Amino acid sequence: MIFYYAPKTVSLATHIALEETGANYEARRLDFSITEQRSAEYLGINPKGRVPSLATDEGILTETPALLAYLAQAFPAARLGPIENPFLFAKMQEFNCYLCATVHVAHAHRVRGVRWVDDPVAIEALKVKVPQNMAECFQLIEDGMLQGPWVMGAEYSVSDGYLFTVAQWLASDGVDIADFPRVAEHAERMLQRAAVQKVLPLYQV
Amino acid sequence: MIFYYAPKTVSLATHIALEETGANYEARRLDFSITEQRSAEYLGINPKGRVPSLATDEGILTETPALLAYLAQAFPAARLGPIENPFLFAKMQEFNCYLCATVHVAHAHRVRGVRWVDDPVAIEALKVKVPQNMAECFQLIEDGMLQGPWVMGAEYSVSDGYLFTVAQWLASDGVDIADFPRVAEHAERMLQRAAVQKVLPLYQV
Repeated sequence: MIFYYAPKTVSLATHIALEETGANYEARRLDFSITEQRSAEYLGINPKGRVPSLATDEGILTETPALLAYLAQAFPAARLGPIENPFLFAKMQEFNCYLCATVHVAHAHRVRGVRWVDDPVAIEALKVKVPQNMAECFQLIEDGMLQGPWVMGAEYSVSDGYLFTVAQWLASDGVDIADFPRVAEHAERMLQRAAVQKVLPLYQV
Repeated sequence: MIFYYAPKTVSLATHIALEETGANYEARRLDFSITEQRSAEYLGINPKGRVPSLATDEGILTETPALLAYLAQAFPAARLGPIENPFLFAKMQEFNCYLCATVHVAHAHRVRGVRWVDDPVAIEALKVKVPQNMAECFQLIEDGMLQGPWVMGAEYSVSDGYLFTVAQWLASDGVDIADFPRVAEHAERMLQRAAVQKVLPLYQV
């Protein structure tokens, strides 16, 4: 498999899960500073011009929740999610979709406002509410979505790398992770995992 | 099961899938005009204050892609997705996640800008780019994501009701569905299905 990633992006979540599978893969870094994600070559891989993308023997996959569920299902021995139980699998996916469509979107209004508006004044205005929105999202996570010690409770899953990834953005979004002690503890717990220790340095360059 | 929905919302996608399962369920309509989705009673069901929510014997599920995958897995006889093949299942989920995190979000900047900014001038500014963003999204869908005749190709899946739901928003978003002939044909095809004919009137009140 070939995994396309970029530092400081959400590809970290899938990168951690991929590492946890124990599968062989090659990681290819895209250089966002030269907009490599919009190069003709990469658009041939992912026409959306985003990361992550995973090239498998069967074809290319994108979108973080889809990739996370795929890795859990395709590598059952790694035990990365409750793949045998449709309800629990749906709860895992519910969490991943909340991060994808609400929390990541709330964060993106600080750094990628240009997606939704051209007016520079409005782009600045979008940054104002980001701390409040991110704090509200993480309050819901703190109050119940994060079951503890892992997102899904006793068992580690792909949702844990995803929560860890998004929680990494809090400081730059103007939110103190210490306001959410269970989330902060979860991040510390994640830092003990070999997969995280291996992958995280690729994202901090 | 109890299904919580509201007219003119994305709950239509899950509502169609639920109807296609053939399962017994009670549909409970929330009145957004009195902000019933933020009532104490409903926040006890879904603390996010959104639709859809599905109360099952095992607990409550939210988030459209998670619900769609759940219905496909929990009711295999209805054949609502390639649940036996992790790669094809991931392709279905990739499509659903694109609708959830990119297309729905692009649309929401016309009707729910207040989520991301308080300044009334900026809320108006967010509406300007919606036709362009929705058209770009649907061009990608037209050019390849929609395999035809159904989203996943020869076989109908939960992704079809989701595409149909989001395509319903194009006109009010200032985009002519006729610019995307394959999407327009897909919508016509969906209108022939008994489940759509039963559920759609609940959304057009």
